[in-house]
Amino acid sequence: MTDESRSESEDTPRSPKRWLIGDPLPTSTLEGQLLPKHLALPIFASDPLSSVAYAPQELLMILLLGGLAFLSFAPWVAGAVVLLLIVVVASYRQLVKAYPSGGGDYEVASKNLGEKAGVVVAAALLVDYILTVAVSVASGVDNIISAIPGLNGWRVELAVGFVVVLAAINLRGVREASKAFAIPTYLFIGSIAVMLVTALIRMALGDAPVAESAGWDVKGEQLTQAAFVLLILRSFASGCAALTGVEAVSNGVPAFRRPKVQNAQRTLVAMGGIAIVLFTGLTVVALVTGVHYAERACDLIGFTDCETEPQRSLIAQIASATFGNNTIPFFIVQAATAAVLLLAANTAFNGFPLLGSVLATDGYAPKALATRGDRLIFSNGVLALSAVAIVLLIGAQANVTALIQLYIIGVFISFTLGQIGMVRHWSRMLREGCTDRGSVWRGLAINALGALMTASVLIIVTVTKFVHGAWIVFVVMAVLILLMIGVNRYYRDVDREIAADATTVFGSSGDHAIVLVGRMSKPVLKALDYAIAARHESIEAIHVSIDDAASETLEAQWAEHNIHVPLTVIGSPYRDISLPLIKYIKQHRAAHGSEVVTVYLPEYIVGHWWEVVLHNHKARRIRHKLMLVHGVVVALVPWLLDSSDLIYGRRSRPLPGQDRRGEPVRPPMRAPNPPTPTGRKR
Amino acid sequence: MTDESRSESEDTPRSPKRWLIGDPLPTSTLEGQLLPKHLALPIFASDPLSSVAYAPQELLMILLLGGLAFLSFAPWVAGAVVLLLIVVVASYRQLVKAYPSGGGDYEVASKNLGEKAGVVVAAALLVDYILTVAVSVASGVDNIISAIPGLNGWRVELAVGFVVVLAAINLRGVREASKAFAIPTYLFIGSIAVMLVTALIRMALGDAPVAESAGWDVKGEQLTQAAFVLLILRSFASGCAALTGVEAVSNGVPAFRRPKVQNAQRTLVAMGGIAIVLFTGLTVVALVTGVHYAERACDLIGFTDCETEPQRSLIAQIASATFGNNTIPFFIVQAATAAVLLLAANTAFNGFPLLGSVLATDGYAPKALATRGDRLIFSNGVLALSAVAIVLLIGAQANVTALIQLYIIGVFISFTLGQIGMVRHWSRMLREGCTDRGSVWRGLAINALGALMTASVLIIVTVTKFVHGAWIVFVVMAVLILLMIGVNRYYRDVDREIAADATTVFGSSGDHAIVLVGRMSKPVLKALDYAIAARHESIEAIHVSIDDAASETLEAQWAEHNIHVPLTVIGSPYRDISLPLIKYIKQHRAAHGSEVVTVYLPEYIVGHWWEVVLHNHKARRIRHKLMLVHGVVVALVPWLLDSSDLIYGRRSRPLPGQDRRGEPVRPPMRAPNPPTPTGRKR
Repeated sequence: MTDESRSESEDTPRSPKRWLIGDPLPTSTLEGQLLPKHLALPIFASDPLSSVAYAPQELLMILLLGGLAFLSFAPWVAGAVVLLLIVVVASYRQLVKAYPSGGGDYEVASKNLGEKAGVVVAAALLVDYILTVAVSVASGVDNIISAIPGLNGWRVELAVGFVVVLAAINLRGVREASKAFAIPTYLFIGSIAVMLVTALIRMALGDAPVAESAGWDVKGEQLTQAAFVLLILRSFASGCAALTGVEAVSNGVPAFRRPKVQNAQRTLVAMGGIAIVLFTGLTVVALVTGVHYAERACDLIGFTDCETEPQRSLIAQIASATFGNNTIPFFIVQAATAAVLLLAANTAFNGFPLLGSVLATDGYAPKALATRGDRLIFSNGVLALSAVAIVLLIGAQANVTALIQLYIIGVFISFTLGQIGMVRHWSRMLREGCTDRGSVWRGLAINALGALMTASVLIIVTVTKFVHGAWIVFVVMAVLILLMIGVNRYYRDVDREIAADATTVFGSSGDHAIVLVGRMSKPVLKALDYAIAARHESIEAIHVSIDDAASETLEAQWAEHNIHVPLTVIGSPYRDISLPLIKYIKQHRAAHGSEVVTVYLPEYIVGHWWEVVLHNHKARRIRHKLMLVHGVVVALVPWLLDSSDLIYGRRSRPLPGQDRRGEPVRPPMRAPNPPTPTGRKR
Repeated sequence: MTDESRSESEDTPRSPKRWLIGDPLPTSTLEGQLLPKHLALPIFASDPLSSVAYAPQELLMILLLGGLAFLSFAPWVAGAVVLLLIVVVASYRQLVKAYPSGGGDYEVASKNLGEKAGVVVAAALLVDYILTVAVSVASGVDNIISAIPGLNGWRVELAVGFVVVLAAINLRGVREASKAFAIPTYLFIGSIAVMLVTALIRMALGDAPVAESAGWDVKGEQLTQAAFVLLILRSFASGCAALTGVEAVSNGVPAFRRPKVQNAQRTLVAMGGIAIVLFTGLTVVALVTGVHYAERACDLIGFTDCETEPQRSLIAQIASATFGNNTIPFFIVQAATAAVLLLAANTAFNGFPLLGSVLATDGYAPKALATRGDRLIFSNGVLALSAVAIVLLIGAQANVTALIQLYIIGVFISFTLGQIGMVRHWSRMLREGCTDRGSVWRGLAINALGALMTASVLIIVTVTKFVHGAWIVFVVMAVLILLMIGVNRYYRDVDREIAADATTVFGSSGDHAIVLVGRMSKPVLKALDYAIAARHESIEAIHVSIDDAASETLEAQWAEHNIHVPLTVIGSPYRDISLPLIKYIKQHRAAHGSEVVTVYLPEYIVGHWWEVVLHNHKARRIRHKLMLVHGVVVALVPWLLDSSDLIYGRRSRPLPGQDRRGEPVRPPMRAPNPPTPTGRKR
């Protein structure tokens, strides 16, 4: 048939489509869809690396609460953070090897520690994604303002604005695995590295850069022994912000090129190495240049116009001290920092739906989240994520310090449970007596250490931050956990309800077809044609008459088209279509026993969103009511309006998280047009 | 079959359902659904009567802009309003007789003056409904505050609150034709009447009540001759607010008992009579008691704490003067006034969807509005209406005077066009040479006079109010008109696109059935059973394999159930169901020519709104994609989850405007449960 051949010819040029819908394809093609390391690094590392942009600042800030003297502890605290970072990276190398499916901590926890643990991790990660957006954006704005202090009055507005932009980008669909996304990360690494080296060289040459705040003193509180310890711990806890995002790689293993695990591990190590270098470097240089960053700007004795002027970010102070204020390199550093932070926020938009789909597959979230490509669902996820983030940003007035308080709780809950899960994993392997016991023992040792350290950090973080807002996190997590378990139980009940045992058989017999006819039109004729083609035992066209004149016209046209299918007209006293139709069907079934009645309804396929408002509502309502009637099948016969061509374009937009999962973007799906008249008469 | 008999037995008790879905029924039963006059009056009159609660006040207030001396013109202005009211009521008596179908001004204008005029009237009425809500609520709140001045600070909050409550009530579904709705109107009429009589008696006894504001003087502006005339006209224009809502009856004729027209006319006259009495009475007594009401409270010389205290409404002042302040009767009057005003606002919620459905039937609004009973659509209407009203109330700070400026433009546009239309109607009848020329001439005369007066009022209103905000109305109306015409054109194009000529024939042949199988479950088995019953030429079950393990289980169960329908398993490289399936279908059709492929999909029917989130999304997406494939029919096989019982309750909720249209409330529709196992094996 002509249109058949047409739609075929449409296929040939689009080879990507061919294999997408099933043809065998050379591995090379598939590899093409996966991430080379030079793209994987920026995609997965923008989150963990960007966190060094605020971690050292928060670390020093907390110490300064005790006064300048406390800065002497900075190296030790920073050292502890670095040590922890090393251990965690090592632990994740093990995790990636053991669970390369991309489930990350969630998978590990649920497989080894059972459902509850998994759900807790999931809740922790969800909270974490929200806070990644909030903190990164807040810090990014902070660095922008440090470069352009004039914007200080617009801090919150800017932050909210950026979240909105990110949401918009992700709603439109954006391919993360593009060069454009790699640039900021590399630029950030590069510029910070150059800055640190320059600073160290100048130091070596005896002209060490001096930060603007170097001269300023800080009001230190008088501290008791306990408060003293607590302060050190708090500063450590804040420094741990540097670890956020390390887990990212473990969720994205499937997106790597072969050998997946090794590539993922290498990326992980590279990332960890860079993070450590940057973190240490920034802390050291900050101490050398004498950056003094206080919780409240006006705690700085000497910072005269603290009311009006913003306190500049640690990176900004170092940059201006090293390169000179408002020099080009200074602006480059600030731009790169801001860019990488916003990029980090974007990663949350990609991770969120990913986790959602994993949860859905396990039945802890609406199944819809598992059907990759349901743009509607993803959009809702994106909107929810940004809405909550915006609320947080407004609530905290886009203040990094305030948000950090909530941040790393979630991270460390998932770290800890993930590590404990790994310990279980290894020990089970030992019990089950595996081959390569050496590597298993090593893995066990590493993860045990990791578990121990992350657990103790979690305790420290909780203790030191609980009163500073961390309690909110626990409340939110509790709610999320209850929701997830509720959803899970619901699905379980439904499964019981629909479970089929060997005896389940429905003995329907008989087969009657009804074509619902509103007025004479092509869609109706197509429906009629299909109904006839389906060769039902008996077939009739039914018209529910609301307006007698219209009904008569229809009957006339019916004769004129000399259609052999009988047309039954039912009167409707109250301008309602479905009820009289249902009545008729019930009578028919009463007369003809337990037969199946197939009701054919034409349905319009439209292109513009607003056309949806103008079509199919009546059909929809009739369908919904018919669906409640015993023995009825509703057969929808599509009619593609010309505008429906538009849909195909939309189909091809990428979805958040696709790249991290190693999924190709779906090519547009063409549909053939409705059959053309063949001239054959009935 | 057992379940068959069950579902039958379910029908027998519910006779209302029996006839609702088509059985013949004695007229008496039908009459039972229609409005007796004692209910029709309050339902249709609450809007027009309530307007006398603010009309006299606005009339006097505008006059007082010129100073106390101007009060001497009040009787003449009020007289003019009353005269106009009489003429308009008379005109509508004619309109009701000529067009008893309930189309009102819109029908008259479009039938006699053509499309454009009709659309203009429609737009005017839509605007009018919104303003009815805003003005009535604002005035209601004003009277509440007059009784409890303490609430003055919460004026806007109260107003918005009431709109929200009204919206909620209408979303839940409320039967207007209940005694509860009649009480406030009668109470209002009664209490005001008693108040007026008491006042007049006291006057006759020489102890005329004196309003609190009687002693206060007003800063009058020095006026030029022109300004003087303009002021009189403005005050007249504001007084015309008393006419708003008179048209209500003409839209509700079908809801009256037989003889519909006579009953409608009597109600109209009764309403007009009462309105005139109350309006005149209130104006006279206001003058006697010396109520001085100024646009800005602080224009009143003598009203010392005008900043803090609210200026009490005219009715409140009369009531407290007549019965004494804060006496029981005083509170009764205020309560009744507030109640009837809120009731009037509620009528807009009933009129809005009614007009919507009329427009939809004529193709000027989304067709969905015409399908009575689509709760979703009505809900959107209710939400839209209240949203706009709330915006208006906040914008105008719930100030009656400010809102009145916008109000009566719309009313008089529809009055005028309606009357002109009637004139055309009568003159055409004369040309066509009708029987009873006398009454036609009378009608012509009355409507001509009506048209003349309403037109001139429209001009006066526009001239006097344009700068005071009326221009907004014209802008909004323009937008609405463009929208309606756009919608109309769109439908027209679609009709052309789908128009079937005698040659339109689709020659499909061949018939293949596919049952999409996810995992073994009752819904799937039911779908399979129905597919088998439909005796397709060829039938197969298809499972798109995402998880090999699951697929194997399924194949095992398939064998175990020894189902004779072959199960085809298709692999899916990217966890997507629809694309491989579509590929398969296309190949099949390529092989078997232009056959119709019926794809059976089980669909869950659920009860709770939140269950919708948890179900059917995957099915929905697959359906949408299949609908784009050539030659495919999607057959939905419903599976009613236990929770689906809940829907029936919701079905029976009344819809806004039902009573005004004479429609009965739909009784709950029971659906039979899915077929029970018969034990027969396949």
